[in-house]
Amino acid sequence: MSRPTSSSESGIEEGLAFQPRFDASGLVTCVATDARTGDVLMVAHMNEEALRRTVETGDAWYYSRSRKALWRKGESSGQVQRVVEMRTDCDQDAVWIKVEQRGAACHTGRRSCFYRAVTRGEGGEARVAFVDADRLFDPADVYHKKS
Amino acid sequence: MSRPTSSSESGIEEGLAFQPRFDASGLVTCVATDARTGDVLMVAHMNEEALRRTVETGDAWYYSRSRKALWRKGESSGQVQRVVEMRTDCDQDAVWIKVEQRGAACHTGRRSCFYRAVTRGEGGEARVAFVDADRLFDPADVYHKKS
Repeated sequence: MSRPTSSSESGIEEGLAFQPRFDASGLVTCVATDARTGDVLMVAHMNEEALRRTVETGDAWYYSRSRKALWRKGESSGQVQRVVEMRTDCDQDAVWIKVEQRGAACHTGRRSCFYRAVTRGEGGEARVAFVDADRLFDPADVYHKKS
Repeated sequence: MSRPTSSSESGIEEGLAFQPRFDASGLVTCVATDARTGDVLMVAHMNEEALRRTVETGDAWYYSRSRKALWRKGESSGQVQRVVEMRTDCDQDAVWIKVEQRGAACHTGRRSCFYRAVTRGEGGEARVAFVDADRLFDPADVYHKKS
């Protein structure tokens, strides 16, 4: 958020308590960036338990909405994330973690999940183009044990 | 997302079409970072119209869930965002925009909405500490016309 809020929300915005505001599904949005380059690696979600484990262990834990399960980033692939710093935003419904990413963050094998740029086509329509899309691993190798 | 998906999703992940996957509310998550420093400035949402206007105009447009309205970032505050690059992630339910931010992104007057670090207290509990929290403007001045 980045718009004016009522004074009743000042505790959330100006307080020293970590009071994550979970959505109806019990989740906050988490943005993970590369602590070295600043690139956004992935956007995912954390529930209360994922947040707690991340703060306690320094490893990034997430909650998968599709699998309805807690997961430690890299537990299958080995591509773990060590958290250098965690921040919360003004209304505490999102967190930003700066991480040391081992290998690639994306399950497709790319360093970042954001390997395609959205551009404006000649007709004005949006289209995408691959950028920074080299694969650091072959997903078939990394995830074959799970198939 | 950063986990294996079925081959039926390969068009979303490997295709050249921009096919944003809106959630049940018709929104995708948008992460805005400072094009110069890489800092995350804010996390917000875009609906189809906000995406279209952002691609067409190069100004960042969002959809406010609380106000249920489309808004151009900076339309009240003057703190506009010019989009340098837009990217989409593997499963196309999030976009990342690198922006030239005029002034401050956060309605509290801070450059970034993420002006507090989450740390681990002595008892192991999560707590927050202000960092990069200088105000670039006084919200009372910038938004007083709206009150």
